[in-house]
Amino acid sequence: MQDIEPFHAIAISRLAHQLKAEGRSIIHMEFGQPSTGAPAKAIETAHHVLDTDGLGYWESPDLRARLARHYQETYDVTVAPEQFILTCGASPALLLALISSFEPGARIAMARPGYVAYRNTVKALRQIPVEIPCDASVRFQLTAAALAAVEPAPDGVIIASPANPTGTIIEAAELEAIAVVCRERGIRIISDEIYHGLSYVEPAHSMLEYAEDALVVSSFSKYFSMVGWRLGWLLVPQAHLEKARAYVGNLFLTAPSLSQHAGLVALDCHKELQGHVAVYAKNRQLLLEALPAMGLTSIAPPDGAFYIYADIGHLTDNSLDFCQMLLRDTGVATAPGLDFDPVEGCHFIRFSFAVSTPEIKEAIRRLTNWFAARP
Amino acid sequence: MQDIEPFHAIAISRLAHQLKAEGRSIIHMEFGQPSTGAPAKAIETAHHVLDTDGLGYWESPDLRARLARHYQETYDVTVAPEQFILTCGASPALLLALISSFEPGARIAMARPGYVAYRNTVKALRQIPVEIPCDASVRFQLTAAALAAVEPAPDGVIIASPANPTGTIIEAAELEAIAVVCRERGIRIISDEIYHGLSYVEPAHSMLEYAEDALVVSSFSKYFSMVGWRLGWLLVPQAHLEKARAYVGNLFLTAPSLSQHAGLVALDCHKELQGHVAVYAKNRQLLLEALPAMGLTSIAPPDGAFYIYADIGHLTDNSLDFCQMLLRDTGVATAPGLDFDPVEGCHFIRFSFAVSTPEIKEAIRRLTNWFAARP
Repeated sequence: MQDIEPFHAIAISRLAHQLKAEGRSIIHMEFGQPSTGAPAKAIETAHHVLDTDGLGYWESPDLRARLARHYQETYDVTVAPEQFILTCGASPALLLALISSFEPGARIAMARPGYVAYRNTVKALRQIPVEIPCDASVRFQLTAAALAAVEPAPDGVIIASPANPTGTIIEAAELEAIAVVCRERGIRIISDEIYHGLSYVEPAHSMLEYAEDALVVSSFSKYFSMVGWRLGWLLVPQAHLEKARAYVGNLFLTAPSLSQHAGLVALDCHKELQGHVAVYAKNRQLLLEALPAMGLTSIAPPDGAFYIYADIGHLTDNSLDFCQMLLRDTGVATAPGLDFDPVEGCHFIRFSFAVSTPEIKEAIRRLTNWFAARP
Repeated sequence: MQDIEPFHAIAISRLAHQLKAEGRSIIHMEFGQPSTGAPAKAIETAHHVLDTDGLGYWESPDLRARLARHYQETYDVTVAPEQFILTCGASPALLLALISSFEPGARIAMARPGYVAYRNTVKALRQIPVEIPCDASVRFQLTAAALAAVEPAPDGVIIASPANPTGTIIEAAELEAIAVVCRERGIRIISDEIYHGLSYVEPAHSMLEYAEDALVVSSFSKYFSMVGWRLGWLLVPQAHLEKARAYVGNLFLTAPSLSQHAGLVALDCHKELQGHVAVYAKNRQLLLEALPAMGLTSIAPPDGAFYIYADIGHLTDNSLDFCQMLLRDTGVATAPGLDFDPVEGCHFIRFSFAVSTPEIKEAIRRLTNWFAARP
């Protein structure tokens, strides 16, 4: 059996918790989750619903309609409420997109580095990941040219903008060029837009603006700060809807009912949520100013999300060992590049800056001392 | 592509809601969900946690330890807390069991009739369902003899006791005999124990009592009355744990955090939950007394769960049409046997009695009149 690898960041996190239990001060920058909770009004609604609703199997018509309005307002894209399939987070949405679109043996293109679950979910379904090496020269992102050069044409492609682990955004013209290549070569697009709403340059565009037959994966876990509520969606074209619904009804049933009530409210909590984005923007700026002085000069431009992916090739050939050493010495937990790139990732680490600004300042203080002491 | 069929009960439910919107009185007996909510103390805990916890990615160590104790107390089976993988309901637990155990092309045995998602999830993974016809003579349940007769030996088998749609329980000696056959023939067991706790004869035994390498699927949706909280588990043998954890980390991440807090409390709410079981027992008794007088004399003995599967072959060859007619005429929504058995299911309907006793009485009144008027 073609096995898939565990997240190495989980091993780092386990060590971090062990060190914390031993009394150490730990700063968690290893996972991609906001340290904030759901918006206050969403929590207030959850309290009310808990007391008034039996919480059976349910797919909220209001939430689907509100999401359709969200796409109209944010991207000027018209979609029908029924095109939204609500899921327990983005992970099952991605699985649903892949399993309902492709057969075992299908070749699915993706950028390397990229989110580890792309590669592993494709492998779990016995589809074949076609990793396209994307280095600093292309901001670690897929390009239309690179996708056009894959022979034979892959059956599908996973687009991620802003991306994990780099935060880089694919600009509008390039997204459009990718859509053209996919149309010409018959490549089905799955666009992971989970980090939308978190951008520090111009906002990310949705692939749907350029390819109306794309499947879009997203969730309430990042911008909406509702990680453990496990609520996401797959937005599918009308032609794929009946099939996707048959799959979700058999493989997953419905998303958490309480989370759907709360998510509907969260969609109107932009003031509170923009406050989180302002914190991330500040954290990002502090890191961008501090990292070069530590010798970390080769970093992807973090246009969005809450990650910085930094080249540490001058210091190590083993990013997992490096992360463990960094954690033991400083209490700062980071993710090894190996999770995102099995080839070059040994030379990279990922910082998540979705923590508080005081934590970022303390992390910078510790890291600065530590890197200064390196030979 | 080998497509999978939608639940026909969803079409019935949609019609039921449409009729209700037109002002009709509807009794929902088409889906397998309690009409009650979570235990009061679980809801109370959820209120507290909502105000005190950020609800990030989380897998509750306390819940896993408590579940291990539950297996010790209920089945006298010793399992370690880490053997529990918490999931968003039983559906992804089943998917996880299948995808981490078998390759495309693997042959997975199951009883027919059976829960539609067994067949369809197996097909979605491009594994091959091997349906074993199980009629009234074997109480619609898999037997060791039937499994021993499958040639060549299947790679896996899905056991369900109590079963959906029949509620029949496999007795201890037969479960043990099935375990022996599986051991001898190298068949991996997936045991769906989602209806445990709901039995009206002797309690159901866990397959783990007879096969310690079985994978067990269960959830908080039935006995614990926490359907829309989307919390389930896959209990895996130690030898399969590392692989299953790698899969769940990539395919699903964590289960809803709030639900894990509430579920932990629900495990100690037996008094309230036994009250629900008493209602189901009463409903079951009322139906068992009333159905024969309607001419529905051939029914599976509903040992557990909250279903009665009734033969209507003397009235129709099309159970879907029949359910629609019954619903339009009486307002009583039921599930067509076609959802559970593509061959013989045209002659059956399933009643769910997880409603209130006044609703059951009213349903019986309407059904009695309707069947009396049939030619």
